[in-house]
Amino acid sequence: MSIPTRPASLKDLAEVTGSEFHGDAQCTISAIATLELAQHNELSFFSNRKYYKYLLNTKASIVILHPDDVHECPANAILAQDPYLAYAKIATWLSETRHKAEPEQSKISESAVIDDTVIMGNNTYIAANVVIAGDCRIGDNVIIHPGCVLAEKVSIADNTIIHANVAIYAYSIIGCDCIIHAGAIIGSDGFGIANDQGQWLKVPQLGRVVIGDRVEVGANTTIDRGAIEDTIIENGVKLDNQIQIAHNVHIGENTAIAGCVGIAGSSIIGQSCAIGGGVGILGHLNIADRVHITATSLVTKSIDEAGIYSSGTPLQESAQWHKNFVRFKQLDKMARRLNALEKKK
Amino acid sequence: MSIPTRPASLKDLAEVTGSEFHGDAQCTISAIATLELAQHNELSFFSNRKYYKYLLNTKASIVILHPDDVHECPANAILAQDPYLAYAKIATWLSETRHKAEPEQSKISESAVIDDTVIMGNNTYIAANVVIAGDCRIGDNVIIHPGCVLAEKVSIADNTIIHANVAIYAYSIIGCDCIIHAGAIIGSDGFGIANDQGQWLKVPQLGRVVIGDRVEVGANTTIDRGAIEDTIIENGVKLDNQIQIAHNVHIGENTAIAGCVGIAGSSIIGQSCAIGGGVGILGHLNIADRVHITATSLVTKSIDEAGIYSSGTPLQESAQWHKNFVRFKQLDKMARRLNALEKKK
Amino acid sequence: MSIPTRPASLKDLAEVTGSEFHGDAQCTISAIATLELAQHNELSFFSNRKYYKYLLNTKASIVILHPDDVHECPANAILAQDPYLAYAKIATWLSETRHKAEPEQSKISESAVIDDTVIMGNNTYIAANVVIAGDCRIGDNVIIHPGCVLAEKVSIADNTIIHANVAIYAYSIIGCDCIIHAGAIIGSDGFGIANDQGQWLKVPQLGRVVIGDRVEVGANTTIDRGAIEDTIIENGVKLDNQIQIAHNVHIGENTAIAGCVGIAGSSIIGQSCAIGGGVGILGHLNIADRVHITATSLVTKSIDEAGIYSSGTPLQESAQWHKNFVRFKQLDKMARRLNALEKKK
Repeated sequence: MSIPTRPASLKDLAEVTGSEFHGDAQCTISAIATLELAQHNELSFFSNRKYYKYLLNTKASIVILHPDDVHECPANAILAQDPYLAYAKIATWLSETRHKAEPEQSKISESAVIDDTVIMGNNTYIAANVVIAGDCRIGDNVIIHPGCVLAEKVSIADNTIIHANVAIYAYSIIGCDCIIHAGAIIGSDGFGIANDQGQWLKVPQLGRVVIGDRVEVGANTTIDRGAIEDTIIENGVKLDNQIQIAHNVHIGENTAIAGCVGIAGSSIIGQSCAIGGGVGILGHLNIADRVHITATSLVTKSIDEAGIYSSGTPLQESAQWHKNFVRFKQLDKMARRLNALEKKK
Repeated sequence: MSIPTRPASLKDLAEVTGSEFHGDAQCTISAIATLELAQHNELSFFSNRKYYKYLLNTKASIVILHPDDVHECPANAILAQDPYLAYAKIATWLSETRHKAEPEQSKISESAVIDDTVIMGNNTYIAANVVIAGDCRIGDNVIIHPGCVLAEKVSIADNTIIHANVAIYAYSIIGCDCIIHAGAIIGSDGFGIANDQGQWLKVPQLGRVVIGDRVEVGANTTIDRGAIEDTIIENGVKLDNQIQIAHNVHIGENTAIAGCVGIAGSSIIGQSCAIGGGVGILGHLNIADRVHITATSLVTKSIDEAGIYSSGTPLQESAQWHKNFVRFKQLDKMARRLNALEKKK
Repeated sequence: MSIPTRPASLKDLAEVTGSEFHGDAQCTISAIATLELAQHNELSFFSNRKYYKYLLNTKASIVILHPDDVHECPANAILAQDPYLAYAKIATWLSETRHKAEPEQSKISESAVIDDTVIMGNNTYIAANVVIAGDCRIGDNVIIHPGCVLAEKVSIADNTIIHANVAIYAYSIIGCDCIIHAGAIIGSDGFGIANDQGQWLKVPQLGRVVIGDRVEVGANTTIDRGAIEDTIIENGVKLDNQIQIAHNVHIGENTAIAGCVGIAGSSIIGQSCAIGGGVGILGHLNIADRVHITATSLVTKSIDEAGIYSSGTPLQESAQWHKNFVRFKQLDKMARRLNALEKKK
């Protein structure tokens, strides 16, 4: 069972998505649960046939599902062509009240340390121990959770939420309707070093991070500032946790990137890409729009066409694996020997 | 040489583990060191034959070792069937006084910001600049280091230690005798997005993180809250640094996971597993009990049986490696050509 | 265009590196930009032939380049054998004023919580909400940004800068002229556990982290304290973001490590190594001086000789990749079948 949501009737929920419904319009739910675990007065959804068996016996009071499945559903139903999308909209509406409630408290915590030159929007919520340096601009309805640090000249646009202990370096720009999760670091120096007779000399990192609207940045994700020009995250990009984005990377609109991905300097990722967890992308590459890269792949060259791309080798019992592992070193020789055998024929 | 421990005699130390000892019962140590570097009045242990040569010449005053090795030992000795385990117990006892000393200061820092509704246990230590929101429950003897942020309704059970700058999102539950290291993020939103005509709509993350007793969470590790039901970390789990645990993952009792591992959503890891550094585990998989996965392996399928599993390819000089690297793309064709050659025979 | 730098003339800039110049000595720049995007009154540099086309048409007022290229340059020029290194020096000089300005404010923030026993250097800047525990030593000209936490007996030498929300555990030692980026964790417990009848017993981590001079530590990088002896980072080491360094690792002078690398316990990395992003290095290995390891390689054995090393397999379209992926399991058998075929000849 989820954390509490506000109560709502079947009729209320169907109105959120403009959907048809089936059953008792006054039936009310006050929590969300999976089909398998749902109890009376709880809302669930059915979008993956793998869970068909749970649909048949669910105790949920209301289920969001495709019209084709309504005859299998023992509960009241909300009908949707894309039940997961409808669920997303309804769950957002049910839980939004929580978020909306916070700005009503509209306050600047006494323990926040805010420079006199900061331009502060209306209806903001600046929590305890937040530090905001000179010449920052904070938009309307912005929520900044405890322990965040904004260096000089940072700009945060309207409705953006910044969770606890986020650090944002000077000159960074974050758009509206963004969510930055706890521990994320925005605008840290890129890894620029020049070799000076065997020692490394730091190359100053003088660009910015510029993040568009409706971007989500996961917990402990790091986004480096540009070396000279900016690192750019376009509108609608979604970044999971512990992603590393190096200096001068450019990520196109509506691209989604799963956890633990690393993108090296100056690579350009297209629009509407989907990048699986743990993928590594080398520097100075171009990835086309609508490229899908599966988890933990290594990208060493630019990708010019939309499509699904992978690299990696299979998991085996270690004893079996080790035999193949050592043979990998002979692969080129094996290919040459195979050529030789074929020629002998 | 380690940071200072309290002084103790051979007799004291042997009593900690109920072990027999050999030598001068009154001999006293006041620090711990490796066999190689130990000096007079220092404690060491011998559990890995690789370091046999250092045992023979150690200057340590007391060595913990197996009874079979006592005749090789120039120092006073504590005898143990498992010297590393005995060392762990003795080192804990020697350094515990440090930890125990802190709660004796038992205090709530003046700069901590604690909501009036928080239920606070006895003998807690809440350090400077900690923020604890409404309806949290803090158990007895809990230590919370500076800069930590606990959102609403977080529960921390007895004797748990939370290091600096940890952020814990609302509704998270942490058991007793846990250690959460600095920068860890507990309860951040899972990566739930639904596609709405090319744009990504956020799916609210309404489950919790529930952590059992005696769990250790490494520095900058992130554990996402569940989407609807909870993300669960069972009793005795040990997590190293920079691990990413996605929404609705379930980790079984006494499983140990090394640094930089990523576990995707809804995967279920069994009990007493050992997962090496940098491993990636895809989503919706089941890993059986007592599975051991070696470092940086990629797990793309469920694992039904206990055993040791691996993936990956060997390191070579780059020029050699590149020849084999490019041949990998021909592997299927090579196999077919080999089949054809065999049939010709 | 970069964030603003102070204005300077061609003559001023050439003096920074003692370089010859070509053009109007009084020509002044007030920002830095790439050759492609530079406008009037901006400085650029040319060090990569890939950008030759931009040199020919650049609108930059001053370009740093090799003497051989000066005839191709439409702008005023600073001549350097290594233009990137010269750029690094000049950009440092141009932006240094920013950094130098901060200590002039020389202050301890009122909201900082500093133990009475701390020994504080001259001309330090301790920002808001910093917490410094007992017996720490802070050198001259040290800058500690908001939200940092230094536990007991931490030592920070002269001129070191610590960015926001860094946590440093007790007894850690950091040299002079270091930069520690936001969210880094220094001195967290190593992952030491001993098996006690199926449960994991924590092994106390009693060593320290000792960091030399001129070391840079990236955002959200974690460096664990030693188990007994120390974890050591030598002078001039440069660490990118989200690196995990386990207990008792030793990294030699002037080694540079890119983002997302994990180094397991007790491994010893030589001097002047270059380790690419996402590399994994297993524990208890020795890596020689001047070893270069390419991105996302896995190192399972010690490396005795300088050279370039790699592992991994190529990215392909997933359908093609999968055919080769599954064949990898047959690699040893294929090699044996190839042997058999050759013997039949």
